[in-house]
Amino acid sequence: MNIDLNADMGESFGMYAMGNDDAFMKHISSANVACGFHAGDSSVMRKTVGYARRDGVQVGAHPGLPDLQGFGRREMNLTVDEVYDIVVYQVGALKAFAEAAGMKLHHVKPHGSLYGMAHRREEIAQAVCRAVRDIDPRLFLYIMKKGVIGEAAQKMDLRCVYELYADLGYDAQGNLVITRHHEAQTAADVARRVVRMVREGRVRATDGTEIGIEGNSVCVHSDTPGAVEIVQAVRQALEEAGCQIASPPL
Amino acid sequence: MNIDLNADMGESFGMYAMGNDDAFMKHISSANVACGFHAGDSSVMRKTVGYARRDGVQVGAHPGLPDLQGFGRREMNLTVDEVYDIVVYQVGALKAFAEAAGMKLHHVKPHGSLYGMAHRREEIAQAVCRAVRDIDPRLFLYIMKKGVIGEAAQKMDLRCVYELYADLGYDAQGNLVITRHHEAQTAADVARRVVRMVREGRVRATDGTEIGIEGNSVCVHSDTPGAVEIVQAVRQALEEAGCQIASPPL
Amino acid sequence: MNIDLNADMGESFGMYAMGNDDAFMKHISSANVACGFHAGDSSVMRKTVGYARRDGVQVGAHPGLPDLQGFGRREMNLTVDEVYDIVVYQVGALKAFAEAAGMKLHHVKPHGSLYGMAHRREEIAQAVCRAVRDIDPRLFLYIMKKGVIGEAAQKMDLRCVYELYADLGYDAQGNLVITRHHEAQTAADVARRVVRMVREGRVRATDGTEIGIEGNSVCVHSDTPGAVEIVQAVRQALEEAGCQIASPPL
Amino acid sequence: MNIDLNADMGESFGMYAMGNDDAFMKHISSANVACGFHAGDSSVMRKTVGYARRDGVQVGAHPGLPDLQGFGRREMNLTVDEVYDIVVYQVGALKAFAEAAGMKLHHVKPHGSLYGMAHRREEIAQAVCRAVRDIDPRLFLYIMKKGVIGEAAQKMDLRCVYELYADLGYDAQGNLVITRHHEAQTAADVARRVVRMVREGRVRATDGTEIGIEGNSVCVHSDTPGAVEIVQAVRQALEEAGCQIASPPL
Repeated sequence: MNIDLNADMGESFGMYAMGNDDAFMKHISSANVACGFHAGDSSVMRKTVGYARRDGVQVGAHPGLPDLQGFGRREMNLTVDEVYDIVVYQVGALKAFAEAAGMKLHHVKPHGSLYGMAHRREEIAQAVCRAVRDIDPRLFLYIMKKGVIGEAAQKMDLRCVYELYADLGYDAQGNLVITRHHEAQTAADVARRVVRMVREGRVRATDGTEIGIEGNSVCVHSDTPGAVEIVQAVRQALEEAGCQIASPPL
Repeated sequence: MNIDLNADMGESFGMYAMGNDDAFMKHISSANVACGFHAGDSSVMRKTVGYARRDGVQVGAHPGLPDLQGFGRREMNLTVDEVYDIVVYQVGALKAFAEAAGMKLHHVKPHGSLYGMAHRREEIAQAVCRAVRDIDPRLFLYIMKKGVIGEAAQKMDLRCVYELYADLGYDAQGNLVITRHHEAQTAADVARRVVRMVREGRVRATDGTEIGIEGNSVCVHSDTPGAVEIVQAVRQALEEAGCQIASPPL
Repeated sequence: MNIDLNADMGESFGMYAMGNDDAFMKHISSANVACGFHAGDSSVMRKTVGYARRDGVQVGAHPGLPDLQGFGRREMNLTVDEVYDIVVYQVGALKAFAEAAGMKLHHVKPHGSLYGMAHRREEIAQAVCRAVRDIDPRLFLYIMKKGVIGEAAQKMDLRCVYELYADLGYDAQGNLVITRHHEAQTAADVARRVVRMVREGRVRATDGTEIGIEGNSVCVHSDTPGAVEIVQAVRQALEEAGCQIASPPL
Repeated sequence: MNIDLNADMGESFGMYAMGNDDAFMKHISSANVACGFHAGDSSVMRKTVGYARRDGVQVGAHPGLPDLQGFGRREMNLTVDEVYDIVVYQVGALKAFAEAAGMKLHHVKPHGSLYGMAHRREEIAQAVCRAVRDIDPRLFLYIMKKGVIGEAAQKMDLRCVYELYADLGYDAQGNLVITRHHEAQTAADVARRVVRMVREGRVRATDGTEIGIEGNSVCVHSDTPGAVEIVQAVRQALEEAGCQIASPPL
């Protein structure tokens, strides 16, 4: 059984460092690279793609809302057309860096509030899916199984990769709880939780409820305290549980 | 004899209108579309590509310095890598809009101070050329015959289109005089000047000197007072002088 | 009876012109000057303050959401502290231009979605009011009579000026209908409507209902088609109805 | 003998942390607070002013070029008016935060390339000085003794504080060598160097030459590796050499 490990990468900006992508890259199989709207800049994008290429990691675009100060986590009331446009723009920019480095763009994963909006609001979901399809219908779309975007993607015959979140909480309805700051957890706890999600399709929600969950890619954070320790623990636990860490083949 | 008519388009931003691209597009054969750094935004880019497609006009990327307030006309001391990166980013973004609309990106033309820097400084010229080549070596590069970028482009086997400026001045050395605001001129004067540049390869410099000049694409402005009248006069005069208005075929 | 005429000014940005503040300024008594977040830039701010000083017009700060592309009209989910901070920042910046020109800052009027949020959400209203009070408790606050911000302002002993909108619609509940683009109306219609609001305290809502309305400052737009004609008609009609056009004295 | 210790503070932006101002503030007597153009944002500004107030540290504005990605270190070709305008804007914004916190703004220190341009180019120096004077002629201006800005400031009767750089190099002409990244040095070396600059008015330039230098405020960095250790060593060494650490009184 193949399981993908993805992480948001390329979130530094100018002199501002976030995470250590150079060192972290080798631990994952797919990198979601910020595209300059909520994080990242053109130089960071080039370098991040370079790390991915060096480490044999697939690169995807990680487009977000145009709000660097809010890191794309402050919801903005964009029109449907504006959502389509910011996705085409950002994915196109990253695709160019991937191709300039001799790689093929592998996937698209919306970031932060855009991710949340696309899971909750049908017309936003459709705008994101149309943008991905219009750029390249073979691109994978990274989403959660739960949420309206799954149906929108299926209607457009997009190939979906379903995410499981290693170190974020789910509410009782299976919705992700996105906060501005991530909480630290022990690596062993996270690893156990991930294996259970992958192997049993179950996880404990923030209110203590047991919920069903489904996915073939585990999202790990690269910028939390102990991120390296966590990803190593997750990786080892998954391999011991019989999984092979690999990105879905293009 | 084929001659291309190009214009900078897509320079509106949000609520801010600049020029009237919808109406102007039909007068030209190649559109240089701003990419969101010095002008334009992702929604303007989509609309501008749509006008070009409708009117059978080729679209190129018009990347500029990251300075919306200065409209890309305030020189900034970027590193060579930063220049490469901002060109890849912006060209990639526009390429995605072109391809999403079923078109192929046709060319790249640096904007404003980036254009000037690339004509004067060899390492900047090389960075721009490398960016274009790394994205797609078949893209045309719009430049002036005079300037270091021509040589850099030739070394990388890029296909160059040489520009003649309909309504900007040249100094005695053949360098373009870029100002923040364009001066108005009569349409007939501009048209006569253009035909002379195209047919005789000569133009009068700002100091009165006669200089030689060479090119196969005439750049007209779309946002000057009387822009429509000027482009119509230029087009008619060129056709009467036996030229066919056409973009270089990909 | 004194009535104030206010308009949003200084909304140009870099090369992008919006309105003609130089010519329009003389028609009003109070100018709400954009502060560089949703519109305006530092150079536009200085020039706009200069026009106001020349024409004896009071200057106020017109802070907005940090979204130039959306012109501050796309709601953003800012925290209460972030709202306080962007108001202090922008008002402080404009206050410096006013004082550098030998004027005193007269008022603060939130712009666009920030204006709407401050009228609907109590904690946003309080954040805006605290920011104004902490900068200078003598500053006038321009708001609508209807909305939670009025109560918040009273609790902090802020001096309120209540706005009437010359050329925007009200719904049956007396809430302003803010759109991205203003509709053109005849100057005479607008003038009649304004005099009726000022003199009778009544206006026809967008659904045809007659509603009560109260205010001592009429907001006119400077960038709509026929803006000059409208402001002149409004001014003349008000004077003929016995009003004196004047800004509230500091 | 009083000597001032100043540091650039408030350089974080949104989610991006730079330095640890909360912990560092107590070590200095004057804080130069970034104003949102090259670094900092309105929320960071409020918090930084709060730390300064808590620790009895004077706050000054640290305006920079409008280039967050380049951290204000990429020279931009602004007009003289644009320089004046960006200084008024940024200083005004910080002044509002200081006054909202019950403090008085103490000084202005241009940042990065703006600092360099103001020391080299007379018309830029004059624009900066005019901006400071027009906001409040009692504000201190932090500059280097060497450079054209000193003369410009004297002509406008501005009060200057002359800086000595603890951990940056000087060339043989006494000009500061500004780089994108600071080099680490041992705390003891830096402390010795500072005491020698303060007490003997001499320092070794980057080419080994001994040069004269003059100043009454030592600039320390808050974001270099070992910054706390360095500032503590500098402070202790200065006190042992008979100096009292204090900001110039307003």
